[in-house]
Amino acid sequence: MKIMGNTKVYCKAVPLLPLQIQRTIEEFSKLPGIGPKSAERLTFHLLRSARASPEALGAALQKLKNELLHCATCQMVTTEENCELCRDSSRDRRTVLVVESPLDVVAFEKTSYTGLYHVLHGVLSPIDGMGPEQLKLKELIDRAGSGEIAEIILAMNPDVEGEATASYLRLKLQKLVPKITRLAHGLPMGADIEFADQGTLREALAGRRSLE
Amino acid sequence: MKIMGNTKVYCKAVPLLPLQIQRTIEEFSKLPGIGPKSAERLTFHLLRSARASPEALGAALQKLKNELLHCATCQMVTTEENCELCRDSSRDRRTVLVVESPLDVVAFEKTSYTGLYHVLHGVLSPIDGMGPEQLKLKELIDRAGSGEIAEIILAMNPDVEGEATASYLRLKLQKLVPKITRLAHGLPMGADIEFADQGTLREALAGRRSLE
Repeated sequence: MKIMGNTKVYCKAVPLLPLQIQRTIEEFSKLPGIGPKSAERLTFHLLRSARASPEALGAALQKLKNELLHCATCQMVTTEENCELCRDSSRDRRTVLVVESPLDVVAFEKTSYTGLYHVLHGVLSPIDGMGPEQLKLKELIDRAGSGEIAEIILAMNPDVEGEATASYLRLKLQKLVPKITRLAHGLPMGADIEFADQGTLREALAGRRSLE
Repeated sequence: MKIMGNTKVYCKAVPLLPLQIQRTIEEFSKLPGIGPKSAERLTFHLLRSARASPEALGAALQKLKNELLHCATCQMVTTEENCELCRDSSRDRRTVLVVESPLDVVAFEKTSYTGLYHVLHGVLSPIDGMGPEQLKLKELIDRAGSGEIAEIILAMNPDVEGEATASYLRLKLQKLVPKITRLAHGLPMGADIEFADQGTLREALAGRRSLE
């Protein structure tokens, strides 16, 4: 330990913890929202916990990418050539809801939506190196060009990248399908107008609907 | 989808996501502070990320408990019979700092402390099924009984379980070692007296030190 002025300089670099613990902490720290302290806690929790086991999580993670495919039609994650939604003949095959991620499909499946999906696996974001080639865009244009689709619903997240992606898709798709729509923006259910942001209120006003 | 009054009942139990994704989400959800939503995000992050890989984290977790031992002397996690701190002959072997967890050792190693440690691996907490037998207490009493220890510093966390454990240890150890101390409690560095809690201020007053 050196003392420089009032500042203590910690010069110990001794790896105090066994290597496998350090390695686990390091790998946990790479995950979003998990800093070094949380990574330490998670690791030691796994060493002690009766409920969570490092072997079970480890085995699940090692198999995570095994045989994982993208559905040949809608690009949803699946382990078969076509996902179960695309194989379901009772669904409305003329409507396609375009989303950013597979989790968005899970969210919409909790509503009464019965059409098909298209998962882009991202949004346009030049700063993150996401251009049209990185998205499942060509596959969407091919589907739209087939002439079998009556409506494409754009359901990107209402943020800058989502809006930019929706605009880009509108330009690319408008000559291929009769109808392109986007999700309604406005006040979420249960919201408090007093605390709603300016953008949401503007959209809620612009999209107001007649009660007749 | 059934509509009952105004309440929508979601009766879909279709496992939309491939099994290995569901399994990973489930295992992540067992960790403290990670709910189902965070578990989903972590899983999909691992599927896409260039920096974090499910295989690397999975491999680290599967090896986590491999050859992991408790140091025969201080009970610190190690992969050898005695940890490197206990093997280091330059350390003051007559002082033992008693802590709850291996991470506390890591924290004290960033200070100028040069004595040895004893890791209890928990605190007394009847509600969690943690009694004296669940802690590395017998090993501490054996060390104290050897007559080689001049001072035991109790460094439990200043909470109910920590204080109870410290009281219990004091009773068990007081006839075995010449000196038992506990960490000072008081205002942390950088604190604001205005916002300090009552207990901290009481301890800070009671433990005040003469400036002479």
